[in-house]
Amino acid sequence: MATAFSNADRAEVLTQALPYFKKYYGKTVVVKYGGNAMLTEDLQQQVMEDIVLLHLVGVRVVLVHGGGPEITGMLKRVGKESQFVNGLRVTDKETVEIAQMVLAGKINKTLVTYLEAKGGSAIGLSGMDGRMITAKMKDPALGYVGEITKVNPVPIRDLLERGYIPVISSLGCDKEGNVYNINADTAAAKIASALHAQRLILMTNIQGLLKDKDDPTSLIPLIDMEEAEGMIGSGIISGGMIPKIECCITALKNNVSKVIIMDGRIPHSVLMELFTDTGAGTMIVKKKKAEKDTANKNDERTDD
Amino acid sequence: MATAFSNADRAEVLTQALPYFKKYYGKTVVVKYGGNAMLTEDLQQQVMEDIVLLHLVGVRVVLVHGGGPEITGMLKRVGKESQFVNGLRVTDKETVEIAQMVLAGKINKTLVTYLEAKGGSAIGLSGMDGRMITAKMKDPALGYVGEITKVNPVPIRDLLERGYIPVISSLGCDKEGNVYNINADTAAAKIASALHAQRLILMTNIQGLLKDKDDPTSLIPLIDMEEAEGMIGSGIISGGMIPKIECCITALKNNVSKVIIMDGRIPHSVLMELFTDTGAGTMIVKKKKAEKDTANKNDERTDD
Amino acid sequence: MATAFSNADRAEVLTQALPYFKKYYGKTVVVKYGGNAMLTEDLQQQVMEDIVLLHLVGVRVVLVHGGGPEITGMLKRVGKESQFVNGLRVTDKETVEIAQMVLAGKINKTLVTYLEAKGGSAIGLSGMDGRMITAKMKDPALGYVGEITKVNPVPIRDLLERGYIPVISSLGCDKEGNVYNINADTAAAKIASALHAQRLILMTNIQGLLKDKDDPTSLIPLIDMEEAEGMIGSGIISGGMIPKIECCITALKNNVSKVIIMDGRIPHSVLMELFTDTGAGTMIVKKKKAEKDTANKNDERTDD
Amino acid sequence: MATAFSNADRAEVLTQALPYFKKYYGKTVVVKYGGNAMLTEDLQQQVMEDIVLLHLVGVRVVLVHGGGPEITGMLKRVGKESQFVNGLRVTDKETVEIAQMVLAGKINKTLVTYLEAKGGSAIGLSGMDGRMITAKMKDPALGYVGEITKVNPVPIRDLLERGYIPVISSLGCDKEGNVYNINADTAAAKIASALHAQRLILMTNIQGLLKDKDDPTSLIPLIDMEEAEGMIGSGIISGGMIPKIECCITALKNNVSKVIIMDGRIPHSVLMELFTDTGAGTMIVKKKKAEKDTANKNDERTDD
Amino acid sequence: MATAFSNADRAEVLTQALPYFKKYYGKTVVVKYGGNAMLTEDLQQQVMEDIVLLHLVGVRVVLVHGGGPEITGMLKRVGKESQFVNGLRVTDKETVEIAQMVLAGKINKTLVTYLEAKGGSAIGLSGMDGRMITAKMKDPALGYVGEITKVNPVPIRDLLERGYIPVISSLGCDKEGNVYNINADTAAAKIASALHAQRLILMTNIQGLLKDKDDPTSLIPLIDMEEAEGMIGSGIISGGMIPKIECCITALKNNVSKVIIMDGRIPHSVLMELFTDTGAGTMIVKKKKAEKDTANKNDERTDD
Amino acid sequence: MATAFSNADRAEVLTQALPYFKKYYGKTVVVKYGGNAMLTEDLQQQVMEDIVLLHLVGVRVVLVHGGGPEITGMLKRVGKESQFVNGLRVTDKETVEIAQMVLAGKINKTLVTYLEAKGGSAIGLSGMDGRMITAKMKDPALGYVGEITKVNPVPIRDLLERGYIPVISSLGCDKEGNVYNINADTAAAKIASALHAQRLILMTNIQGLLKDKDDPTSLIPLIDMEEAEGMIGSGIISGGMIPKIECCITALKNNVSKVIIMDGRIPHSVLMELFTDTGAGTMIVKKKKAEKDTANKNDERTDD
Repeated sequence: MATAFSNADRAEVLTQALPYFKKYYGKTVVVKYGGNAMLTEDLQQQVMEDIVLLHLVGVRVVLVHGGGPEITGMLKRVGKESQFVNGLRVTDKETVEIAQMVLAGKINKTLVTYLEAKGGSAIGLSGMDGRMITAKMKDPALGYVGEITKVNPVPIRDLLERGYIPVISSLGCDKEGNVYNINADTAAAKIASALHAQRLILMTNIQGLLKDKDDPTSLIPLIDMEEAEGMIGSGIISGGMIPKIECCITALKNNVSKVIIMDGRIPHSVLMELFTDTGAGTMIVKKKKAEKDTANKNDERTDD
Repeated sequence: MATAFSNADRAEVLTQALPYFKKYYGKTVVVKYGGNAMLTEDLQQQVMEDIVLLHLVGVRVVLVHGGGPEITGMLKRVGKESQFVNGLRVTDKETVEIAQMVLAGKINKTLVTYLEAKGGSAIGLSGMDGRMITAKMKDPALGYVGEITKVNPVPIRDLLERGYIPVISSLGCDKEGNVYNINADTAAAKIASALHAQRLILMTNIQGLLKDKDDPTSLIPLIDMEEAEGMIGSGIISGGMIPKIECCITALKNNVSKVIIMDGRIPHSVLMELFTDTGAGTMIVKKKKAEKDTANKNDERTDD
Repeated sequence: MATAFSNADRAEVLTQALPYFKKYYGKTVVVKYGGNAMLTEDLQQQVMEDIVLLHLVGVRVVLVHGGGPEITGMLKRVGKESQFVNGLRVTDKETVEIAQMVLAGKINKTLVTYLEAKGGSAIGLSGMDGRMITAKMKDPALGYVGEITKVNPVPIRDLLERGYIPVISSLGCDKEGNVYNINADTAAAKIASALHAQRLILMTNIQGLLKDKDDPTSLIPLIDMEEAEGMIGSGIISGGMIPKIECCITALKNNVSKVIIMDGRIPHSVLMELFTDTGAGTMIVKKKKAEKDTANKNDERTDD
Repeated sequence: MATAFSNADRAEVLTQALPYFKKYYGKTVVVKYGGNAMLTEDLQQQVMEDIVLLHLVGVRVVLVHGGGPEITGMLKRVGKESQFVNGLRVTDKETVEIAQMVLAGKINKTLVTYLEAKGGSAIGLSGMDGRMITAKMKDPALGYVGEITKVNPVPIRDLLERGYIPVISSLGCDKEGNVYNINADTAAAKIASALHAQRLILMTNIQGLLKDKDDPTSLIPLIDMEEAEGMIGSGIISGGMIPKIECCITALKNNVSKVIIMDGRIPHSVLMELFTDTGAGTMIVKKKKAEKDTANKNDERTDD
Repeated sequence: MATAFSNADRAEVLTQALPYFKKYYGKTVVVKYGGNAMLTEDLQQQVMEDIVLLHLVGVRVVLVHGGGPEITGMLKRVGKESQFVNGLRVTDKETVEIAQMVLAGKINKTLVTYLEAKGGSAIGLSGMDGRMITAKMKDPALGYVGEITKVNPVPIRDLLERGYIPVISSLGCDKEGNVYNINADTAAAKIASALHAQRLILMTNIQGLLKDKDDPTSLIPLIDMEEAEGMIGSGIISGGMIPKIECCITALKNNVSKVIIMDGRIPHSVLMELFTDTGAGTMIVKKKKAEKDTANKNDERTDD
Repeated sequence: MATAFSNADRAEVLTQALPYFKKYYGKTVVVKYGGNAMLTEDLQQQVMEDIVLLHLVGVRVVLVHGGGPEITGMLKRVGKESQFVNGLRVTDKETVEIAQMVLAGKINKTLVTYLEAKGGSAIGLSGMDGRMITAKMKDPALGYVGEITKVNPVPIRDLLERGYIPVISSLGCDKEGNVYNINADTAAAKIASALHAQRLILMTNIQGLLKDKDDPTSLIPLIDMEEAEGMIGSGIISGGMIPKIECCITALKNNVSKVIIMDGRIPHSVLMELFTDTGAGTMIVKKKKAEKDTANKNDERTDD
């Protein structure tokens, strides 16, 4: 397909991207990548290509990743049988150790390797490095599932200032050295807050918020916090989407300018969001500026 | 025409540009722009758009400009009649003062304004600023036509390090404060040498070197210095092209990696040269690596 | 005349200047130079000598210049006939272009060349460089006469920190790239405010404020803002001096410590003002400290 | 046991350590830690305590670790059966992936957590991060066992300059993104060379070099490269000790001042080596200074 | 005695000091040393050894010294007879000159020399250097006894940042160049305030505060300001100890975290205070945290 | 006398000094001041005024001082009787201690106080500070008279870079902490060499070199090393002037550009030397450029 573009076409596209490059130059963008959006190696490579491009055009990009499906796979492989409390899996010491190996040892380093191969300079950390993510147990019954008590952004800034792309596994630890598995959306949101990021991008395996969840053409391009809370109240947002949206709202209330939920399985959705006029997925803002009916995403996108 | 690209197309093109962005990140590129290639405002704006894009993707880009046609226009306007010696125009005090006004006062500031409007941060200098270009009289009979005796690159580096695009008028002065008009190709070449630039790009109103000057399809994509000297000897390169090519050769012999002669009238030719696989115009290198018949421009382009 | 001083005399004078050197070390002084005070080349060279001396003894000196008479001369030369509205000249596109050429292309570069010849290191900018002066149309009837909406002091500080004397043409532009001619007093005052300057010096072709405008011996050495406003009210300050004084008052209200109006045609008046005990011209301060009758300029001069 | 020291004793010991603190202030010490020397958590914590102490007294300390036994344990746990070629285990893709998880995901982060708990500020990397260790396949028959082709010390220096203790897993990768398991002794030696380290300390599960391998009292405190090569030739050094010693010699030939082989199972052996008068283990130097019979380790230790 | 420690003992002690090293890393500690506590050369050397150790483990240590007994000795030696007013010695010009020679010329440089010999890098200043201590006459009847009007901490910070231990003689001067002898406790306290020091340590020739001044076992380890004021009121603190305690209280009220009064004649009392669990002497804090009866010094020591 | 100058005169003199300010801007000038040239307080204040002026106009000025007469005075005052060996005074421990007190405690701090009062920012050091001057005993029979074995210029540069005028007492010490009295000419010369100074100025109580030592009008303005050596051979230079001249020659051979011997008792002789066209005293250069008979001092002065 690539051969369809002439050199003049290419130059044309690049110059049309110019105002967007300008807009995000020197800005901090935290991208959460994980779950089903990272299932194939091809998909992962494509996303890493986008991250490197952001990096090269001067965006201070930070990648936060989880890896639930791979952890489950590894637990199965070592024959670890999980216990459940009220239907929730208990993360015992053995389980969190497996999670640590998969996240910090496998996924993190694989993403770093892809970024390097695409021309980026990346360093992979996890929450334990440089005391970055301090956590405590959320619920003793669930074991080592962590609730973040503090994010120390200094190591991330140190890497950004030295020209690296920080890649961060969503793990945390406490002063006693216990390691906790942390929800990657939450980790990304808290990191974005600590960095006063302009954008938090959650790459998921859904398109964004839908007016009618069974109608893929009903994507909502833009809502504000109040609307989002209303949609939770009215049940339009439900299930696993609720904590995700709540974590977006918390980020917006804590120094993050705008949040985007998008489908990480669509090739180059990050680039489309940041560098084209229509964007991708659903953007959540603090407060829409104009009247609801006239407000549109592009107005918001060009304004921060 | 722009509407012909979907967002996916745009993202596709951007990611295909990634290796080129990477290649030129932090590299110094001196672009000479002038003469008939800058005749229309539209053309000027397009070239400035390209310069800003280079700047934003991390290229240390320096713009050197002349402005012969506009100087001629202004001389005519003030009713200044030029004297001629052996058919060459004499640049007397009054003429060089007009040249200074047109170059440093009009063209330089217009280009700066265009760059700023496109999102760049530019500062316009001329050779007198910060004692950047020291010159002497080339030939007393011709008056204030300058020959460069020294280029001081410090002010240019100062501006690059503070994040500005330096825009330089091809003027020089001597210790007594006399101002000289300087050929813009030469000024750009000497500046590129003083900066140890990776690329010197001469934007002209010709396509590049042609095997047969009457056949526009006979563009030579790549030659080396020896071949170029041969072509001067054999008369293929002739007329006003001879000093241009000689100035390229001098640059190559003095710390400049590669020189490209291209047609500044083709929209976005700089972007095509740097960020696509086929490039634009004629590249001159010190010494081709492989056998002449097998050598091709892309091999050279991917190698410095 | 210089030979009248013995070396011992010279040393004596230098050591007497010591407390003044100390006083202004590291301070920011904005000097506006223009109009009839810059009529001869000799005068210009003398003023530039003073500026270089300030620079060498550690003053952060910034030179802002206009050039009305030369613009008028050039307009005449190209045969441009101006239109008038209510007796005020209309600055159409052609006129502002001529102004730009004269200011940024001729006067600015000439001053830079003189400063360099005297041993300074200078860089000439105009308001368009680095988006330094943003302006809008003051009155559509008058065309491209600009009113400053914003001064960005960053490029000036960048040059000062790298050891250059910034020389600034009083031009501005808007986001659309339109260029405006700006009153040099106003430009200097706004720049002094943006830099939080200790001194703003307006070099004019008058001695300063006179009690009796026909009596050159009636120079007022020191007034404060309230007195100045009173003198405008009572008509002692009148005509073209009113906007000049108003612009001084605005500067004093916006972060400038003291303003001096002096005669730029007296050799080395800047040095006399800053480095001798009696100063030169009229100093305007926010509020005189002592009783009016006992207050004197030297008390004020030694105190900021 | 700690209670045996009075405060006066403690102060006494500290002041006696003063010349050693002074000696190593600002020096680079690379410590390789791995294998059987890191078997218990208590031992690991003790070694990390020493590393933090070095860090706090101003040593630029870098920790490189392997983890063979834990990799073997994990392979067994996932039921991976290894193939053997000439008695050597083949590291296929699956095996190197397990190694990566154990090294970069488990051991590395555990050591980081211990260092943090002791008061250090540590960041764990592996050879893929920041393109630090480039490797290639040593022997296709053995699979992903890497031979280092290049060490990039920049990320390590970046971390040291920002005040972190770098903890490095002995993994490498190639441009295609293949990961290789690398011998930790070799990795530490190459890293020490790239950093021009003053000391390379290999913490093993042996005392050092013994004159008589069955007599633990026959520890050789000091040899030089020539002697070491002689001992290999004469068979005194044999088996797995040969590559270890060869790697020390290579380090000494490549910018490392001195190498020490010591028993990591003895509590605080690193502190004893660096901060007491007798040291620990066997020191290998380029060339002994005095006659062999009179040379002693302390002479060498006080001299670099 | 030193031979009583095995290397394992030494390592053990060092690792037990680790949390204390960590606690004071990068903190500012001002040590006042003088009077009878500096009587023998051996004592001086021991204290300087401690200062160098603090310096090497990352404490920003500043040494302030007096030298009353040596000044008295020198006055006697030159046969200067002092006059007395109300029993207080008058410091005339001649006396202050002798004091200056003894403090800045002898003691200061001797301490610097000892620090250098122990491996520190020290620079000796007195209050006149860099206009560090501005003073005025306290009481004309007493002559050149100074009261500090201003401490300029910049020269001290300049030296700390360049890696030197500043050693400061307690002298001051006024704008006219008069020199004043200043009480060293006061000088140290004011310097500690100007530096926002974590600790001010006054090394004296008493153990600390005693409940019963005749019972050396009644040392009070910890009091707060209120208690100290009470003890002055009730006469438990009396005589020369009153101004010392008042100067501690002033320091605590002005940006100093904690003050310790200790016996400088006990070998390594500074190290014992900072690097062991029981400390030495009496610590004065702003406000004890817990109930008086349960509060203890260690709680306070671990908390700032 | 000062009132003899009009403000115009003053400005005139300042602008005539401009090229000299320019010439020495950023240059390093080491001034040795001592002996009979510093006998009165007035003289000392005048010289300090000159030093501050050099500092303010951007010269990196370093002041080195001795103080023989004052040391002799103090020895007498304490009733110390000196022993003599071959007519040379023996500097025993007691004597060097007195010297240290007078130099580092009195003269050094007095000079610092004067510099501060004139508006400079000065810090006084002696050779022991920051291990600046390492010395050894010259001749055991003469006691603690030091011969410099090493000058460490780092503390001097540290002070210059932080904007202080370093004032240095000519004392040194060895590793054992013994202090040595050092000839101030030698100390200044070695310091000038270590700093690669452009000028070494020895302020003495003679005019300079005289052709006929009894004829004060026979001052030699300029000689080179070869001539100086010839004059020693022929006896024109004799007595105490010989070591002084030898120390100049050593400085010229070791990185110092030019040396001037001048009369410190003439008001502002330093300013006259550096900032007027005829200079003061005798300049010694490596090698005169032109023929001896045509060479003159001003040619040399304008050339380095």
